[in-house]
Amino acid sequence: MALSEGSRPGSGVVAADHVSLRRNNLSVVLRHVREAGSRSRARIAADTGLNKATVSSLVAELVDRGLLRDGQSEAGALGRPGQLVELDGRGVCGVGAEINVDYLAVTALDLSGETVIEQRVPLDVAHLDPSLTLDRLAKLIRQAVTAVSARGGQTAGVTLAVPGLIQSATGMLKLAPNLGWTEVPVVDKMRARLGDPAYPVRVDNEANLAALAAYSEMKVADGDQVQDIVLLTGAVGVGGGMVTGGHLLRGGHGFSGEVGHMPVAPVGGICGCGRTGCWETVVGLTALLNKATDPDDPVRDPSLDVEQRLAEITRRAEAGDTRTLRALADVGTWLGIGGAILVNILNPDVLVLGGYFAVLGPWLKEPLESAIRDRVIAPEGGGCRVVRSELGFTAAVRGGAQISLDQVFLDPTLVGRDAAGVAQ
Amino acid sequence: MALSEGSRPGSGVVAADHVSLRRNNLSVVLRHVREAGSRSRARIAADTGLNKATVSSLVAELVDRGLLRDGQSEAGALGRPGQLVELDGRGVCGVGAEINVDYLAVTALDLSGETVIEQRVPLDVAHLDPSLTLDRLAKLIRQAVTAVSARGGQTAGVTLAVPGLIQSATGMLKLAPNLGWTEVPVVDKMRARLGDPAYPVRVDNEANLAALAAYSEMKVADGDQVQDIVLLTGAVGVGGGMVTGGHLLRGGHGFSGEVGHMPVAPVGGICGCGRTGCWETVVGLTALLNKATDPDDPVRDPSLDVEQRLAEITRRAEAGDTRTLRALADVGTWLGIGGAILVNILNPDVLVLGGYFAVLGPWLKEPLESAIRDRVIAPEGGGCRVVRSELGFTAAVRGGAQISLDQVFLDPTLVGRDAAGVAQ
Repeated sequence: MALSEGSRPGSGVVAADHVSLRRNNLSVVLRHVREAGSRSRARIAADTGLNKATVSSLVAELVDRGLLRDGQSEAGALGRPGQLVELDGRGVCGVGAEINVDYLAVTALDLSGETVIEQRVPLDVAHLDPSLTLDRLAKLIRQAVTAVSARGGQTAGVTLAVPGLIQSATGMLKLAPNLGWTEVPVVDKMRARLGDPAYPVRVDNEANLAALAAYSEMKVADGDQVQDIVLLTGAVGVGGGMVTGGHLLRGGHGFSGEVGHMPVAPVGGICGCGRTGCWETVVGLTALLNKATDPDDPVRDPSLDVEQRLAEITRRAEAGDTRTLRALADVGTWLGIGGAILVNILNPDVLVLGGYFAVLGPWLKEPLESAIRDRVIAPEGGGCRVVRSELGFTAAVRGGAQISLDQVFLDPTLVGRDAAGVAQ
Repeated sequence: MALSEGSRPGSGVVAADHVSLRRNNLSVVLRHVREAGSRSRARIAADTGLNKATVSSLVAELVDRGLLRDGQSEAGALGRPGQLVELDGRGVCGVGAEINVDYLAVTALDLSGETVIEQRVPLDVAHLDPSLTLDRLAKLIRQAVTAVSARGGQTAGVTLAVPGLIQSATGMLKLAPNLGWTEVPVVDKMRARLGDPAYPVRVDNEANLAALAAYSEMKVADGDQVQDIVLLTGAVGVGGGMVTGGHLLRGGHGFSGEVGHMPVAPVGGICGCGRTGCWETVVGLTALLNKATDPDDPVRDPSLDVEQRLAEITRRAEAGDTRTLRALADVGTWLGIGGAILVNILNPDVLVLGGYFAVLGPWLKEPLESAIRDRVIAPEGGGCRVVRSELGFTAAVRGGAQISLDQVFLDPTLVGRDAAGVAQ
């Protein structure tokens, strides 16, 4: 029962200073308009409990910062119609940038979630020096930032997505087995390449960011009853991102979600991590290609775009090619054997298939669901549904862009007051 | 970006009615005294931002309800010394009651965490009709409630702990493989046996409750930096309870933590769930006893108290008995193989050994830690420490009692105003 001073839920109602109070109220109004939709100042006051004069002043500042704008007049209002206030999408953008085993990707999203620019280039990262890869990625990021400026927008931040163990606080990549990278200070190196920009640069685990994007996707599709998801990102490596009770599960040191290295396959091959029997040796993209194709088959070529290669696999599966179908069924079953472990431990509402698992989902889903039914101890798989993400290989970059935008929703003063001016 | 009305973090600051406002303020004051320690009314007012007259009125009501009491005078205060207000332990108790494979247990804790009564009786539950087991448990609960009354206290609630899949909302036990119970409405049946009492009766998964108790234990030992733990409860079955980011991880339907059925041991025996290769077939108490003892060895007898049986195993291990030591090393290694999966997925600050794993921890810990070092992909096991719980087989009942008390801290009006009167 002894408790230290540090945690006092609900107590410690210390008076906030005026600056932080104003910042908080700006955030309340901005998030309310995002979530509840465009509405009049009077309605915002009524919804939030803030008084009307305060709301007018807060909205004026948010318009100044390019985050809100006046929209159409209120329809059907009695008396003088109020002007509706709506989210200003153009003013501010978040950028997500991904380094993966065989591609780089960048996306910029504006405040309303619209895609401003999206690029993916095939690159054999595992066989390239990290500094060359970072050079290439910096070039893509600069193009995205330029595209944001060109439409009158401001870049709120850049988030790097990497398939590895990340120390978010220091911006350090500890280990990315499939890239062959160890102890790379990716944030520092990227900041230097971007000319030490004014906007923040962050790094996070690729599967964590993809899980955030997939969680938004599932909530839009299913409503707010979804609170727990597990996202599986299938590429050469396999990552897991988990949202539990509505929050990203990061773990004590930020190293959660290393599902690719569950020792489920005693007969599996040697993994990028140096061990044998890891889950990704039987369900990763390389495992599928090794089973489905010959060594000189062009779909194995990492210099080709991964979606083109998967389109070819899809074509063969649709044509009924026995070897392809057998390989897909085999991967689907292994996917279920590891998936059942995750479902038994975490009992998610939804197991989301991301990356290549989503693309080839039509062939993976049935053996996967069957393995889960057989192996999950709770009746009917504990109520867990298997759903293919529509985000494909863009989930991580979208999640990265979203994290940068989330910071603006939490603290709108991060955006300069000239944002709207630039847009005009 | 489309969002439904349901989730509006930070917005929707709707004016609370007076009753709920008062209830909330009672909770703020009560929790503040619990967490920050005994202090004067003036100090409570300063700490919480509530005005002094309100604090006096709130404290008076909490004293009336038997939750706070006046303690000694403030030491070294300038001017008129203030009376210190402190938690009144005696007034209110929570009761936890556990059904496990080979024992029943009951504990009552008072508001300050003191044990009022603690009982454990060996019982071969798996071979007994559920209604007889519930009869026996009801008798133990009535004894605990009587002990609480005898010292002038009020029972705030009873929480049943069961090693199985629980639907908390309906009080239904869906499935407990090791008890052989299916679809038992345990809360309804227990309420009927207790004569439909005024206090609430709940049911929760045994490992979840044990994890809550272990989480409090780790925070007391290590301070508030611990936010993520995995508790392994070792009995005939093996359960997992997880706290992530400071919150119990329940999963989408409350069926999380079924770690005992991870298929890690292709050569394992047949599990209570009907499958082969489940983790608990190689690390459960039965697995240890089968390896370490002959079939007619009295330590296998479930009618003897489990702690006595484990004391005998401990004696043999300390005496250097080769068969016992080999069995313990084997179980420790398997514990690490499954433990590494959990650590890779969840990256806890602490992996807590509970139940029989805690008792025999001195022999299990080294092979377990070695397996985790080898198999966890993050450097140095992702910073995860292995710690033996001191709560032994009382963790689940303590967690159950705690949950009932937590409700009182959240809403002190759950306790009648006559509580203090009874105590005098």
